[in-house]
Amino acid sequence: MTDPGDLRPNEEAVELEPASDASLRFIGTIRTPWRDRKDCPRQGKLDGPECQLVLDPVWHQALEGLENYDTIEVLYWLDQSRRDLIRQSPISDGQTFGTFALRSPVRPNPIGTSMVKLVRIEKGTLVVRGLDCLDETPLLDIKPDRCAFSPKAPDKPGSRD
Amino acid sequence: MTDPGDLRPNEEAVELEPASDASLRFIGTIRTPWRDRKDCPRQGKLDGPECQLVLDPVWHQALEGLENYDTIEVLYWLDQSRRDLIRQSPISDGQTFGTFALRSPVRPNPIGTSMVKLVRIEKGTLVVRGLDCLDETPLLDIKPDRCAFSPKAPDKPGSRD
Repeated sequence: MTDPGDLRPNEEAVELEPASDASLRFIGTIRTPWRDRKDCPRQGKLDGPECQLVLDPVWHQALEGLENYDTIEVLYWLDQSRRDLIRQSPISDGQTFGTFALRSPVRPNPIGTSMVKLVRIEKGTLVVRGLDCLDETPLLDIKPDRCAFSPKAPDKPGSRD
Repeated sequence: MTDPGDLRPNEEAVELEPASDASLRFIGTIRTPWRDRKDCPRQGKLDGPECQLVLDPVWHQALEGLENYDTIEVLYWLDQSRRDLIRQSPISDGQTFGTFALRSPVRPNPIGTSMVKLVRIEKGTLVVRGLDCLDETPLLDIKPDRCAFSPKAPDKPGSRD
């Protein structure tokens, strides 16, 4: 994954063993209008184009109740990203920022998170607005927006701390 | 992972192959006051107790610039969660919700996401408020809050869609 030739001025990579602490299962695929990284918006907008979250059939029943939410959180795997940079230079001008001070797709675990508008659900496909990722990005998870969501179970002791 | 004996009334699990689509690298450990799942709050609160994100030394430099943000997004691995439920009954009363309509830790990829208040950074340890996870939960990622963050690079064509 470390290819010093790809670094911009002052960017810094670290040597890492292969990742092996836990494993992910892709649950579907995201369809967007963007086929090339240079075409993707920097950040999704809630009035952006419609995109589709195409869920694998085994998970269709797991959507039950999600139709009650206007805004949902989407997690996805940025599978084209290198994972070894600690400092990045977003505009290649020699000025760098730490990886964790950026929302760049280049990160040790390239998981994208977006809050999107849920337009409609058509069987196992969710139509949403607000994404910024490449077409065919693997889907990892869907959750109700934490702001709109009230836990379905009663409070627990830790909540009163 | 499928143990029918652990299901609550009307909960439903699916048969799955082992997860093998992508691999994660833990980047540190989260320290919280909660040692048992029953003690964790249902949702973190920004005025909750101080917790620590203890980053592995290789990633310390990647924090540079994060001190400018009051609110940060934290991703972590809910390593004690089963991953095969499609319907869950949060209060064991027979009423179920689809997994994706809940923010339960039980999900196909048990990745927790929280927006937390960044109190201070002490070398490679971030002191934050707003978490709800167990002590010693593995840390996956840290990003600036998407609401406070402005991309450091200029707009791209997709942003104008």
